[in-house]
Amino acid sequence: MIIQKSATPRIATFDPQNFSFGDTFTDHMIICEYENGKWGDVKLIPYGPLPFTPAMMGLNYGQACFEGMKAYKDDEGEVFLFRPEKNFERINKSASRLAMPEVTEEMFLGGLKALVDMDREWIPQGVGTSLYIRPLIFATEEVLKARISNKYMFAIVATPAKSYYTEPVSVLISDFYSRAASGGVGSAKAAGNYAASFYPTQLANQQGYEQVIWTDDSTHEYFEESGTMNVFVRINDTIYTPPTSEKILDGVTRDSFIHLAKRRGIEVRIEPVSVKKVIEAQKDGSLKEVWGVGTAVVTSVFRALGYKGEKLELPTLPLEESFALSLQQDLVNIQNNKSEDPFGWRMKVGKEVLQDA
Amino acid sequence: MIIQKSATPRIATFDPQNFSFGDTFTDHMIICEYENGKWGDVKLIPYGPLPFTPAMMGLNYGQACFEGMKAYKDDEGEVFLFRPEKNFERINKSASRLAMPEVTEEMFLGGLKALVDMDREWIPQGVGTSLYIRPLIFATEEVLKARISNKYMFAIVATPAKSYYTEPVSVLISDFYSRAASGGVGSAKAAGNYAASFYPTQLANQQGYEQVIWTDDSTHEYFEESGTMNVFVRINDTIYTPPTSEKILDGVTRDSFIHLAKRRGIEVRIEPVSVKKVIEAQKDGSLKEVWGVGTAVVTSVFRALGYKGEKLELPTLPLEESFALSLQQDLVNIQNNKSEDPFGWRMKVGKEVLQDA
Repeated sequence: MIIQKSATPRIATFDPQNFSFGDTFTDHMIICEYENGKWGDVKLIPYGPLPFTPAMMGLNYGQACFEGMKAYKDDEGEVFLFRPEKNFERINKSASRLAMPEVTEEMFLGGLKALVDMDREWIPQGVGTSLYIRPLIFATEEVLKARISNKYMFAIVATPAKSYYTEPVSVLISDFYSRAASGGVGSAKAAGNYAASFYPTQLANQQGYEQVIWTDDSTHEYFEESGTMNVFVRINDTIYTPPTSEKILDGVTRDSFIHLAKRRGIEVRIEPVSVKKVIEAQKDGSLKEVWGVGTAVVTSVFRALGYKGEKLELPTLPLEESFALSLQQDLVNIQNNKSEDPFGWRMKVGKEVLQDA
Repeated sequence: MIIQKSATPRIATFDPQNFSFGDTFTDHMIICEYENGKWGDVKLIPYGPLPFTPAMMGLNYGQACFEGMKAYKDDEGEVFLFRPEKNFERINKSASRLAMPEVTEEMFLGGLKALVDMDREWIPQGVGTSLYIRPLIFATEEVLKARISNKYMFAIVATPAKSYYTEPVSVLISDFYSRAASGGVGSAKAAGNYAASFYPTQLANQQGYEQVIWTDDSTHEYFEESGTMNVFVRINDTIYTPPTSEKILDGVTRDSFIHLAKRRGIEVRIEPVSVKKVIEAQKDGSLKEVWGVGTAVVTSVFRALGYKGEKLELPTLPLEESFALSLQQDLVNIQNNKSEDPFGWRMKVGKEVLQDA
């Protein structure tokens, strides 16, 4: 790895009590370039602009995918990644579906650890705070031909993240717009999937809903995802979530919730979740909770479902009765090294790069 | 418009008889930046890199769309655009679907004319050659949040293009992969649509097919597009093409072919085209031609259709018997100012910018 420390670090100006999530970047980033059929050296360099023209294929043809993950600092100041090998697997699945080269474990996990180690002072300490990390791969060749690119960049950038806590939200069950086609790229974290969701989400916002529950595009009878998250439904004391497929993202938080629910002895059914079943359960009172899960907020609890002009209210459960909040707490405790780690999900980030550099 | 002429033009090194399409860029480009809710000045500047970080939203969330169009130089050296108002309309439809700001006519048509005028020496003269022009809009804000960007760039870049002539190709009718979801972004020239098509196309290539005929994602029973083109089918002496929808691009070449076919008195039916009907017509000999149309190659004639393990051959018709080739010739003659312009499709590009600059 080639390491070039920032000559003008901004860390002294960073106030962990008062910063803007998402556009406050740490002092460094990882980059690695692909050409002539192979990846070059991994470089840890100061965060900043690189020279790209508007002919860059990643911008023209959308050959770009990313991951979202976090690093956590415990009470002793030790830093941990959470199941990074899952993100490593998934970025390569996304890359394959978009006909992009896979990245190596050295690039991905080695790059992650080096960046997090180098910029560990940027990780806020305290319940729920973390460092949000964004690995991505994008096509960099400058060619106006709609074909597979021959040049790519792998990069990792990071921003401090505030507490995951969010208010319960209202969500609109989609009966026209959709985020994924059968035989499409819904299961990849493809850049284009997100842009496609913005306009329908904006329409939902205008109707008073914070997010969209995406349904299958051909019948709109089955739940797929919610916003940019996987979705869970609790009817009586059973949790339901749709199976992953080429249309549904194989979320790391989704998988973790399934493990944690089973550990608590909660029945989890991974099967198609029909809109009809959820609406009927709301009507007869057996629908206890619906929530989304993802890296950014861990859990987004829903307080109402909009469907064909009707707004169906959901109960507000206290922590001790809520599966969503209990499982969230189980997960956050593991992530922040406040509990045992029964599944071996934490990966400690040692102090290596910073001392070498 | 702010005009900054290149101090180191490369035009003297350009050989119109020997250049590489797609990665030979003209000396200039147009850029215009959007922030605080409005577009800034349109700038005509030297083609080259701009400073972007890997946190750019266009790369992370795929908020990016483009147009493909051409400028043609006639025997007298006069330069024409072809129906540029159609591309102007469409880029704004794409932008709206991706929750991006629309561009103004001054930016789009004014920018196009200025760039083509300034770089008119880059346009090769001769049958079928042209200047391929790429207007695009992409999100430039640096934020790691999956939401609508607040900053964008509109840009126009251009590359000289060789003769449109291509050999007939074999195409594979898709029975699993798809390019568009119902309620999705198929009708937008969204960057992500192209990346999503690369892997299925690569699989088709490995089976000996140059392109994929995309079918509807829920049943795969109806034709949608072919490769990056709209598709036409001729059974006996009637032409069929699927209606545009939120899944099918409203192609300028498609629309032009429909007009030109009607002018020749050919019956054109704009209706769903079922795979079954096409296969049956091939079996009984009434399937005369199948072809794709688009700006880049005008027409791509198909010589075989692959379907569920079978390769169905198509006749090879000479120009005088082929609707595909006759209509292509009609169109190219209008584009190159070699025939009348009954529909008012040509737009002459005057010599203005170059003299002012």
